[in-house]
Amino acid sequence: MRRASREFFTARTVGEALAGFRPARRTPVETVGLADALHRVPAADVRAPAAMPGFARSTVDGYAVRAADTYGASEGLPSYVELAGAVRMGTAPTVAVSHGECVAVPTGAVLPDGADAVVMVEHTAETMPGTIEVTRPVAPGAGLVRADEDAAAGDVLVAAGRPLRAAQLGFLAAAGVTSVAVRARPRVAIVSTGDEVVPPGTATLAPGQVRDATASALAGLVRDAGGEPVAAAIVPDDRGALESALRAALADADLVVVSAGSSVGARDETAGAVAALGEIWCHGLAVKPGKPTLLADCAGVPLVGLPGNPLSALVVFGLVGVPLVWRLAGCEHPPPEPTVRARLGRDLASATGRLDVVQVAVRYGVPVPTAEPLFGPSALLSVLARADGYVIVPEPATGLDAGTELTVTLHR
Amino acid sequence: MRRASREFFTARTVGEALAGFRPARRTPVETVGLADALHRVPAADVRAPAAMPGFARSTVDGYAVRAADTYGASEGLPSYVELAGAVRMGTAPTVAVSHGECVAVPTGAVLPDGADAVVMVEHTAETMPGTIEVTRPVAPGAGLVRADEDAAAGDVLVAAGRPLRAAQLGFLAAAGVTSVAVRARPRVAIVSTGDEVVPPGTATLAPGQVRDATASALAGLVRDAGGEPVAAAIVPDDRGALESALRAALADADLVVVSAGSSVGARDETAGAVAALGEIWCHGLAVKPGKPTLLADCAGVPLVGLPGNPLSALVVFGLVGVPLVWRLAGCEHPPPEPTVRARLGRDLASATGRLDVVQVAVRYGVPVPTAEPLFGPSALLSVLARADGYVIVPEPATGLDAGTELTVTLHR
Repeated sequence: MRRASREFFTARTVGEALAGFRPARRTPVETVGLADALHRVPAADVRAPAAMPGFARSTVDGYAVRAADTYGASEGLPSYVELAGAVRMGTAPTVAVSHGECVAVPTGAVLPDGADAVVMVEHTAETMPGTIEVTRPVAPGAGLVRADEDAAAGDVLVAAGRPLRAAQLGFLAAAGVTSVAVRARPRVAIVSTGDEVVPPGTATLAPGQVRDATASALAGLVRDAGGEPVAAAIVPDDRGALESALRAALADADLVVVSAGSSVGARDETAGAVAALGEIWCHGLAVKPGKPTLLADCAGVPLVGLPGNPLSALVVFGLVGVPLVWRLAGCEHPPPEPTVRARLGRDLASATGRLDVVQVAVRYGVPVPTAEPLFGPSALLSVLARADGYVIVPEPATGLDAGTELTVTLHR
Repeated sequence: MRRASREFFTARTVGEALAGFRPARRTPVETVGLADALHRVPAADVRAPAAMPGFARSTVDGYAVRAADTYGASEGLPSYVELAGAVRMGTAPTVAVSHGECVAVPTGAVLPDGADAVVMVEHTAETMPGTIEVTRPVAPGAGLVRADEDAAAGDVLVAAGRPLRAAQLGFLAAAGVTSVAVRARPRVAIVSTGDEVVPPGTATLAPGQVRDATASALAGLVRDAGGEPVAAAIVPDDRGALESALRAALADADLVVVSAGSSVGARDETAGAVAALGEIWCHGLAVKPGKPTLLADCAGVPLVGLPGNPLSALVVFGLVGVPLVWRLAGCEHPPPEPTVRARLGRDLASATGRLDVVQVAVRYGVPVPTAEPLFGPSALLSVLARADGYVIVPEPATGLDAGTELTVTLHR
């Protein structure tokens, strides 16, 4: 059992890792239908093929008029216009509006030629058959949207690099864009290592064995980030086996994640295997939990070596792995995470120069919620499974006092 | 063209709708594997079949000892213990620790019998082969987790009614629970109505036609809420056609959403058809946009009638439809939404007694971001597609002043 001398060889802060470890790799472009496009990342701006809605459209139930014919109209002194006809929904108008005339239009109908405004039905009365009394004036453009008010032909409907939201799918549908060129979901190979690690389906454990918890949890985080988890094998703590498992994973994935064995010796094996396959960019991250993290570039495929403890592994993957998955799909600004402002329930100690990620339970109360730190060895997955979220004690701080108001990032 | 006299017949506030329109219906229970369980809602608490990790486990690389043998140890006056052997990862110890002895253990290994603590290797030295010098005392329980420290047999691992998070999938995997009984994804039938509405794939529009934007956007919101959108037909503004389309949808769905035609006449047709199929609980919601909203119970299947304007329809579905989808799957507390605190960029007017939902663009700046209201007719989908989020002007307020600090709920 020896102390790993190279453990802090190229230690980095989380900020350095996010700013500096930026693989150029992007997933290929593929075309998907709108029904499969939610939260996918467009590979290029999508532009409107034509003006939208494409015709001047009434936004109220009422009468299309020439606005000038209503000037000065009031309850006491209405204007009178002759009803020249009506527009049916979804059809072209068969009448135009001349001076002194109006045409009945339902909400959403095409504005007839000659009209430049729509008077709401509430401000009219049909006093005699065929004559409409207008009791309030309208300005040109009132009660309608222009033919290109939603978008002009060529306008950007959705931007490259931003995950598509539900409303944007509707906007594309309105434009007649029924498929989108998006980046393929990044394939993330998850390699678990450890002589003691057995598959989750193992019914009875031999003494000392543990089931692979990290792979299932990582797969969830990968899916949340729009990636496609690829279950790779569980590999024993053996350099040769590790190297060949990683080689296979690298050939087939956009990102390889290896949850290292938990002992220092096992971590050394992982580092050795990775060093043989690529360039180690960072070996040691100034974060607690998660120090024994490794970032490497293996001939263009990024590799993240995670600590052996499930809690540490998941914290680190959330901090530096999730942004990588988004970036591989061409998204530089991942969607925002849910947060809540809360007061810290007790003092938190921290070392300067190290970012601390502290799991908390949130108690909702007045005037603000309380964030109660959950402690326990990072070997305990229950801490993470039971936490509502986490708070960060930034690198410069030596700790945070109870009562400090801070932002809790909520697990989702 | 007549004014709908029943439009505000049973008008409700959004709060009343959320508290009072609570269908008892729940989707059936089905069993899914862990790989498919992310964000699914467990139908019952899942308990630990056995203690976790199942054995006392070292959390450090070091030496298993009897804590009492280290009392008083210091750099100046170390304790000495005899090395009785080593534990290999993933195997049962073959040696026990007697008084005055220690056994080498890597992180994660089984604690040998007789030991009650683990000294970190950093606080030891092997001064002579077989003799370990301990320079710091340890308390009983140090450097290890108990056999049931993650969970005791029978402990609740994940609770019914709470969508499963990534870390919880790991926790279940660690327990050997590889499948979970969850509520089926609520099937949400989306019925679009309107003589002018044509499918998104329609390449060339006839005058007055618009493509169905709302259905695609609603499908996205339904998926975000864990539901399964079921595309139903586009139905003309005809009572008989509507009634038979709704009847078919109700037979096959857990929730029916109908985006009504945009004119008052079309809305009346929808209300008439719904009234023939169930009990209208709310006709008119005190929200802008979204007033002409309808909530009904059709023999146990909830039905939401949405306004014809896509923007209004999506705002209302987010407010009252999304919580319904979650509830149908047995989840009373949907996951939190991402938010950001911001200062309002300009004054907002509002009517008392009405909740206003105002789309905003967020400009990130110092000291806090600014929320710039985006205005435009609710017929414009571009407003929603371009907004970063929305702010709410609550019912009692007559408006909000520029500079007011408020919470922006971010679209995702």
